[in-house]
Amino acid sequence: MQKYVYMFQEGNKDMRELLGGKGANLAEMTRIGLPVPRGFTVTTEACTSYYENKENLPKEIEEEILDSLKSLEKLTGKSFGDPKNPLLVSVRSGARASMPGMMDTVLNLGLNDEVAKEFTITTNNKRFVYDSYRRFIQMYADVVKGYPKSSFERHIDEVKKEKGVSFDTELDALDMERITNDFKEIYKEIAHEDFPQDPKEQLLEAVRAVFRSWNNERAIYYRRMNDIPSSWGTAVNVQEMVYGNIGTTSGTGVAFTRNPATGEKKLYGEYLINAQGEDVVAGIRTPSPISKLAEDMPEVYKEFEELAQKLEDHYRDMQDMEFTIENGKLFMLQTRNGKRTAAAAIKIAVDLVREGKITEDDALLKVEPKQLDALLHPTFNEESLKKGTVLATGLAASPGAAAGHIYFTAKEATEANKNGEKVILVRLETSPEDIEGMNHSEGILTIRGGMTSHAAVVARGMGTCCVSGCGELTINEEEKWIKTKDGKVLHEKDAISLDGSTGKVYEGLIETEAPSISGDFETFMEWADQRRKLKVRANADNERDAMQAKKFGAEGIGLCRTEHMFFEKERIFNFRKMIMADTVEAREKALEAILPYQKEDFIALYKAMAPNPVVIRYLDPPLHEFLPHDDEEILELAKDLQVSVEELKNRIDSLKEFNPMMGHRGCRLAITYPEIARMQTRAVIEAAIEVMKEGYTITPEIMIPLVGSVKELTYVKEVVTKTADEIIKNAGVELSYEVGTMIEIPRAALIADELAKHADFFSFGTNDLTQMTFGFSRDDAGKFLNEYYAKQIFEQDPFARLDQEGVGQLVKMAAEKGRSTNPNISLGVCGEHGGDPSSIEFCHQVGLDYVSCSPFRVPIARLAAAQAAIREKENN
Amino acid sequence: MQKYVYMFQEGNKDMRELLGGKGANLAEMTRIGLPVPRGFTVTTEACTSYYENKENLPKEIEEEILDSLKSLEKLTGKSFGDPKNPLLVSVRSGARASMPGMMDTVLNLGLNDEVAKEFTITTNNKRFVYDSYRRFIQMYADVVKGYPKSSFERHIDEVKKEKGVSFDTELDALDMERITNDFKEIYKEIAHEDFPQDPKEQLLEAVRAVFRSWNNERAIYYRRMNDIPSSWGTAVNVQEMVYGNIGTTSGTGVAFTRNPATGEKKLYGEYLINAQGEDVVAGIRTPSPISKLAEDMPEVYKEFEELAQKLEDHYRDMQDMEFTIENGKLFMLQTRNGKRTAAAAIKIAVDLVREGKITEDDALLKVEPKQLDALLHPTFNEESLKKGTVLATGLAASPGAAAGHIYFTAKEATEANKNGEKVILVRLETSPEDIEGMNHSEGILTIRGGMTSHAAVVARGMGTCCVSGCGELTINEEEKWIKTKDGKVLHEKDAISLDGSTGKVYEGLIETEAPSISGDFETFMEWADQRRKLKVRANADNERDAMQAKKFGAEGIGLCRTEHMFFEKERIFNFRKMIMADTVEAREKALEAILPYQKEDFIALYKAMAPNPVVIRYLDPPLHEFLPHDDEEILELAKDLQVSVEELKNRIDSLKEFNPMMGHRGCRLAITYPEIARMQTRAVIEAAIEVMKEGYTITPEIMIPLVGSVKELTYVKEVVTKTADEIIKNAGVELSYEVGTMIEIPRAALIADELAKHADFFSFGTNDLTQMTFGFSRDDAGKFLNEYYAKQIFEQDPFARLDQEGVGQLVKMAAEKGRSTNPNISLGVCGEHGGDPSSIEFCHQVGLDYVSCSPFRVPIARLAAAQAAIREKENN
Repeated sequence: MQKYVYMFQEGNKDMRELLGGKGANLAEMTRIGLPVPRGFTVTTEACTSYYENKENLPKEIEEEILDSLKSLEKLTGKSFGDPKNPLLVSVRSGARASMPGMMDTVLNLGLNDEVAKEFTITTNNKRFVYDSYRRFIQMYADVVKGYPKSSFERHIDEVKKEKGVSFDTELDALDMERITNDFKEIYKEIAHEDFPQDPKEQLLEAVRAVFRSWNNERAIYYRRMNDIPSSWGTAVNVQEMVYGNIGTTSGTGVAFTRNPATGEKKLYGEYLINAQGEDVVAGIRTPSPISKLAEDMPEVYKEFEELAQKLEDHYRDMQDMEFTIENGKLFMLQTRNGKRTAAAAIKIAVDLVREGKITEDDALLKVEPKQLDALLHPTFNEESLKKGTVLATGLAASPGAAAGHIYFTAKEATEANKNGEKVILVRLETSPEDIEGMNHSEGILTIRGGMTSHAAVVARGMGTCCVSGCGELTINEEEKWIKTKDGKVLHEKDAISLDGSTGKVYEGLIETEAPSISGDFETFMEWADQRRKLKVRANADNERDAMQAKKFGAEGIGLCRTEHMFFEKERIFNFRKMIMADTVEAREKALEAILPYQKEDFIALYKAMAPNPVVIRYLDPPLHEFLPHDDEEILELAKDLQVSVEELKNRIDSLKEFNPMMGHRGCRLAITYPEIARMQTRAVIEAAIEVMKEGYTITPEIMIPLVGSVKELTYVKEVVTKTADEIIKNAGVELSYEVGTMIEIPRAALIADELAKHADFFSFGTNDLTQMTFGFSRDDAGKFLNEYYAKQIFEQDPFARLDQEGVGQLVKMAAEKGRSTNPNISLGVCGEHGGDPSSIEFCHQVGLDYVSCSPFRVPIARLAAAQAAIREKENN
Repeated sequence: MQKYVYMFQEGNKDMRELLGGKGANLAEMTRIGLPVPRGFTVTTEACTSYYENKENLPKEIEEEILDSLKSLEKLTGKSFGDPKNPLLVSVRSGARASMPGMMDTVLNLGLNDEVAKEFTITTNNKRFVYDSYRRFIQMYADVVKGYPKSSFERHIDEVKKEKGVSFDTELDALDMERITNDFKEIYKEIAHEDFPQDPKEQLLEAVRAVFRSWNNERAIYYRRMNDIPSSWGTAVNVQEMVYGNIGTTSGTGVAFTRNPATGEKKLYGEYLINAQGEDVVAGIRTPSPISKLAEDMPEVYKEFEELAQKLEDHYRDMQDMEFTIENGKLFMLQTRNGKRTAAAAIKIAVDLVREGKITEDDALLKVEPKQLDALLHPTFNEESLKKGTVLATGLAASPGAAAGHIYFTAKEATEANKNGEKVILVRLETSPEDIEGMNHSEGILTIRGGMTSHAAVVARGMGTCCVSGCGELTINEEEKWIKTKDGKVLHEKDAISLDGSTGKVYEGLIETEAPSISGDFETFMEWADQRRKLKVRANADNERDAMQAKKFGAEGIGLCRTEHMFFEKERIFNFRKMIMADTVEAREKALEAILPYQKEDFIALYKAMAPNPVVIRYLDPPLHEFLPHDDEEILELAKDLQVSVEELKNRIDSLKEFNPMMGHRGCRLAITYPEIARMQTRAVIEAAIEVMKEGYTITPEIMIPLVGSVKELTYVKEVVTKTADEIIKNAGVELSYEVGTMIEIPRAALIADELAKHADFFSFGTNDLTQMTFGFSRDDAGKFLNEYYAKQIFEQDPFARLDQEGVGQLVKMAAEKGRSTNPNISLGVCGEHGGDPSSIEFCHQVGLDYVSCSPFRVPIARLAAAQAAIREKENN
């Protein structure tokens, strides 16, 4: 029979898939003798089974849970529901991958009226008992029943107001008893039934609720952001309660073995006296730094320090731990590899190698490639910063600098950002529902909450700048304003800037600058470069991006989109003239005027990137994209072009397309207007010859877009080679160049063996290939993709992460077919996926030669490529 | 060494690929002892070599030609360029497949001034010699040099006028000599050089010209229309001249062994005394019927009759022959299987079987499936057609002939027809709203749109004659007139006639003849049905089409597009209400109102088709297609829906898509609005139960469109089965139904093994699959496809003929993958390709179960499927 429940002493850290991360680590800590409250884990397979049974918990699993409960009673000597000696438990979710705050927790489960009453006598601590009971009711109502927390919180606020106190700790035993009774009333009012008194019912309901929470909206969103499959499910940990809220010799806290912001090797964290776990995270009271524990409880601190070191050595990584002190006794409630900033991640990885604890391979695998983003994002320009006015200072929760316009709800922040605005999200405190809005923000500012508050943890994970706990500011979320100590009021859309490394909040927009990179980073990236097999190129259309890319380690340009060059003011006019031309001659004349500009661009690119290769893609978008659409602009252009408005409008109309994505673009333009390809070839080759004469080495790679049949390629290729060879011959130089094709049309992948006979290289345009293979356009998919995520039709955005099952099949096929007829063909990927770690791993696996991505993603790609190579080695 | 030239005596009829059809048959006739003037054939491989050498004739081939010329001189005892005993030759093209009139011929080659002068003495027939010479100059100028024929023809006309005669035969020897001299002058004027006097130069130039003619515009067009690959090339036949223009005992003619219009077994043809070959075709003089030859030259006639019979028996098919009589001696210049009308084709095939000359298999292979179209549609009365004036020519979009009065709106067309008038609907282009009007029209004429435009597709489905994309006409829909290139204007109610098989638009009413299907047709189709393995279904959205389809032999409905049902007046309102609904409830209410209509439709379809299966495709097009777009209609709808115009406009705007083809449509609609799928399921199942209760047997097949991932299919399938099973259970009946999916997104083909686990059937939507695989939309491809054909990037329209190399690869892959996980899965094709013979052969080869096509194409599909099966048998 399948086993669905494991006691902590039965598991170990390698059982993460079955027990979830939290469960496996609780088992491991138990195994190596750490003080862990006893308990058991309901497996992720039970969760899968729950969903397979249409969200019902199979009888056999219920029974196994109740059996394990009996074992736990034996272990603890306490009984569930026994007023004399009650066993109380916490019920916590724990997935295979850490999903902090994404799912739910219920504490103090097992309490009911009778138990509570008797418990006040055995503990002789009525305040503690009713504080625990009221917390339980509130959490149960929220997590199990989905009733709004606010109904309960509002009531506590009223009681505090009535008593004239500020903190929960100032409420006494009678207050707590009264609050408990009131909570039961509130519960009954909402639920139309009494608060459940049967502890077993409470337990099974809570287990179901945790399973249910696996599919709540924020969990789905988090999984999508972090590539976690919904099929994994979550485990549930049922654990004997220990109490940080018994009194002043009790407390609870979280700590890291090293500083998660900088990587410094020093215990880092905070704790609260007389509190339960969620108080630290919720930021209701401001906790004390962990170092103060050495003063408050020196013995406990010493023990904790030792345990922390033991855990770090055991896991060979920086640990993030939760602990509770119950009447002076330390209990470990959780350990996991800690989230950290990119800078910290690099420093810790490199330090651990230096300390001889891990290998370079291990170090490379410890850093999430996407995190590097944070190292590469801007800091404030010194000069601009000097002129800045500080409005307030909060906690430096997540490093980086950000400038933008303030919004007070996640939704509005998201919308504004989608409309192209740079956004700072300002909240009293954030909650998991705010994830999407946080993701769309340059920076996050919270008024409450510490360094380990939700906002801080999540922002660090995202690599987004965050200032938390900025209590100097007053906020009114409903009326949408914040007020400084000096009475200055800022409203929605006003501009501020945040320094996540100092906690300072500035007025207005302060200029930002590219970051500088530490020595550890260089060391780390060198290790990566030694291991990776994939080359990394960058997508760059201009000199500046090319320089940036080279600085970040790009080994060439994988995609230069020539059309971007046409939009500059002086050029667009001639380009439009070209579009309006009636004859080949008129078109050639207009192109002649564009040629010098295009040549100039290429010269700059070659010089920036030499001696590395530069791939130049020929004109791709449909021509109508270059024409104006509103009346005023049309009038103006008609004047400039000396044609009638009617004529211009007719031309614009005649170019209109039903489905521009599938229209007259790419190589189809070069076939109908070979003169465009001729001009571009002249620019590419003449520029190369000039640069060569200055002593640079350069091999231009000419890329034909949107090819779907062999003759498209050979037709355009002949235009290119005829033009190029003539120029080279006339110049009397030796210049080699390559001609290749994009693989971005499904048919191109299907006939790649034939195409490869005529191509020096393939570059997979996975953006378009994804659109065509799925049959939806990025621009339109927005209308239904949210529904797709909600209904779990899709778990991932196929435009962000390469769909390996479908699109990947075409990529693999094309690579194999291409090499079968042209073993020397060079294969690369350009487009969004070239900077996505999981897609890069796929590219490594199918044996591509390089990926090309935006300059800021180059280091990410370098690391992801190295990780792919290391993992492959490990798997062989 | 490769052999590029074959003497006639070296070849035979099976060498068609190398020698071309004409060459192989000349060799065969030589071989079996028929009187054929001697000669040799330059192979199709020489043509290929010519193109591989960038349109240069390789030296070795030139030499081989001149060597063969020497052999010919030996055989004939005449010498090329020898004034005393000159060898004159004809140079004719001859491709593998017959391409009548598509390529070029030069006669009397070898003549020059000196030869002509001497020849007049040896032949003692000056008129004949100069008649031949002037013909040669004219043909050489036209074919080899590409100079306009008219310059020469105009001059003959002038001479005739001057002499006051009507026919060339009335010109005497001096006239001919004078004309010859004048022609040389005209040639020199255009060419800026003398007419070439070196016979060898003449010959090689002519060979090159024939090769060149393989890629002239009309040849490319003909190949595209007839699926002939450009890689085949043409052969060139060089043959000793025989003269039908020596005098009154000479002549030339063409004849068929049976009547090519009716199939009647009787020699049929015509001839001219004292003429050369092209005179018969050119129609300058009116030829005599072949039967008259029995009076003119009884001996020759008898010999010819015998030879004709011998050839028919030898080739076991009706022969189309060319012959020349030189001084009473008969020569055969060509024989080939004759082109024939559909009716003749069937009769000849069936007769030949009855005569014991061929097998039934042979008979089936003799009829071109596409020809059957002509049997199923009205045609013009021959006599009446001769008097017709062509106003314009468009695309032959849907076959048949129609005559009627023009109307410019669907509404007016409908009304006029209801009043008993025969109507031609004329539109810029049609849209789904025009369906009713199209239904009431004899024929449809559109100014825009291609072979797969809305008008073309719908008309073919209805079996209504249609000429689309007639850009020669200008239309003003508001003022209700069309204008021809010559400025002729036609208004509402003016009469025109359309030939949907040629694309011609005639002035006035031309008499039409109803199609008649003979007993031979029935016999023939029975033979086909006995052999084919593919089932043939029809695409039908209404009862009438279903009945028509069944009459033509359809074995089920392979595609019922439910959206067409929503456009009818009473329904569209509720459908629009559904689109405007803000809530699921409001949407369900509107759907409830549509349900009875939809149910009624299905009842009618089931009854028409029972017991054969009916495949019902769920709502496919994006919702905006159902909303009005001009202001007046919007105002009206807003009133009807009781919403503000602004609100309605906002909704219309919000539904707009950048690329509707790749937008919110197909199963994506059923996922965002499962209530639509629920309503459609109710209609499908409730209708089936009703029909079942009346004693019919019916298995509805529910088809989910546009599926690209497994979860899309399983999500919608669950909506369907849940609804269906409940209805069936409540009705207490036993009804089985199937749920399957379209394969029309490339990704669906790639993951077909996974999809097949959840699908009872796949139906390949090759229209969309072609669009997505090629990455261009039908609607937009028109902008560049003509250029593609001209530059031979494409030789075929991939929307008319399945692209086997690319799209076919996906079809094959999906079929194999699908069967690998679900061996019982049923596989079919719906869409345009289901009625295209070459695509049907492909479907047979990859082992599909059925094809589905428009009702009028069902007989074509039945024959094509039989031919595929026979060919497969023959190849094994």
